[in-house]
Amino acid sequence: MEHTKTKEQIKGYTYGEVAPSPFTLNDLELLKKTVLFSSEDEQYLRLAGEVLRDQVDAVLNLWYSFVGSNEHLLRYFTTNGQPDLDYLAAVRDRFGQWIIDLCTRPFDQDWLNYQHEIALRHHSAKKNQTDGVNSVPIINHRYIVAFIYPITATIKSFLGKKEHDTETVEKMYNAWFKAVTLTAVLWTYPYVHTNEF
Amino acid sequence: MEHTKTKEQIKGYTYGEVAPSPFTLNDLELLKKTVLFSSEDEQYLRLAGEVLRDQVDAVLNLWYSFVGSNEHLLRYFTTNGQPDLDYLAAVRDRFGQWIIDLCTRPFDQDWLNYQHEIALRHHSAKKNQTDGVNSVPIINHRYIVAFIYPITATIKSFLGKKEHDTETVEKMYNAWFKAVTLTAVLWTYPYVHTNEF
Ligand code: HEM
Ligand code: HEM
Repeated sequence: MEHTKTKEQIKGYTYGEVAPSPFTLNDLELLKKTVLFSSEDEQYLRLAGEVLRDQVDAVLNLWYSFVGSNEHLLRYFTTNGQPDLDYLAAVRDRFGQWIIDLCTRPFDQDWLNYQHEIALRHHSAKKNQTDGVNSVPIINHRYIVAFIYPITATIKSFLGKKEHDTETVEKMYNAWFKAVTLTAVLWTYPYVHTNEF
Repeated sequence: MEHTKTKEQIKGYTYGEVAPSPFTLNDLELLKKTVLFSSEDEQYLRLAGEVLRDQVDAVLNLWYSFVGSNEHLLRYFTTNGQPDLDYLAAVRDRFGQWIIDLCTRPFDQDWLNYQHEIALRHHSAKKNQTDGVNSVPIINHRYIVAFIYPITATIKSFLGKKEHDTETVEKMYNAWFKAVTLTAVLWTYPYVHTNEF
């Protein structure tokens, strides 16, 4: 299914309208070097964006069923011990938009700022506020980093669905892996002792 | 070249002799579920261990040349602004042993304890102590997590060097990716605010 809502229709999606990130573009350059992120990766991310665009719902179905079948993960979407369906649905729309954003947005100041906003929304600083819910107060740091694996590994079959050759799929996959690692790093900022990040 | 030093000859390698990890085996089970780590992965890690055993030096050459060609990474091995060759050499032996340990050791209490010890050795809590050096006091958290990419991606060609079919290489690669993600998570423990890990 096509990812249908326009950005304006996604509740709580505030890309371009958030506070500045404490992490600088210079620091981002060094981080990109550390994950070997090149301009070729940028191109393959754009291609991945085209490949994934009409598969966003299928990707989200897979990820949500993974979270839903793991009590220790579903927890973070519960209110009074019960899965909060409105919360799950609201986050799902923004999560879908993130897939497209990660592939298509330039990694500039706006991008950096929104990564920090997403970081705060996983952390006690801002979790639950966007959707006005009363869920558990924070997503533990360990799982933010651990998610690099499932978020990366599960994308590969979707990248292979549009008849690109193995080498092209491999390049899209590696660009995605690097980009996910970058964002996961940025999302851990609020959890880490000052000066140790 | 074969990885030649016995464990007893590796200076500062104290597997099985360190303080207990604050992270429990129960928590580790949930983390394993989060990266989809199964008993099949254990088997493929063992196989990866066999494949990598006589390639450890070649892997380390690649990783060290990556660190050496990036000033922002080499920094962590410098004393008074100069690369500390004794320090680099001492760590290299333990790093080589870690490759084999990751593939062959059971993920039990001893393993968990040593992961925490390695975490402390990257953190200001214990960096430099093992080798009695006067290098920079801490490796920043961002790079511990970011290293998941290069440590994972670069291993694949080595896994393919022993004539296993593509599917087997892919399975060894994924088992390695999961295991590296697990250990990187555990190594971030000392950096994170109490109760947020
Ligand atoms: C690499 C790891 C992760 C990725 C790529 C990811 C992606 C996202 C995205 C894109 C959003 C919406 C951001 C926005 O408001 O625009 C979000 C929010 C959320 N995610 Fe994650 N996430 C990750 C880790 C996790 C983990 C481990 C959990 C735990 C199950 C989790 C649960 C949530 C929840 C509950 C929200 C809503 C937060 C709020 O109240 O605003 N996420 N995530
Ligand atoms: C997933 C990421 C990483 C892996 C797999 C890794 C692996 C290792 C291993 C196995 C050791 C030796 C542990 C022991 O004492 O037995 C070690 C120590 C060390 N690593 Fe890392 N490392 C990672 C991230 C980093 C980064 C980003 C840097 C920065 C360049 C770095 C620099 C060092 C240094 C300086 C030591 C010596 C610490 C001491 O003084 O004891 N490591 N690493």
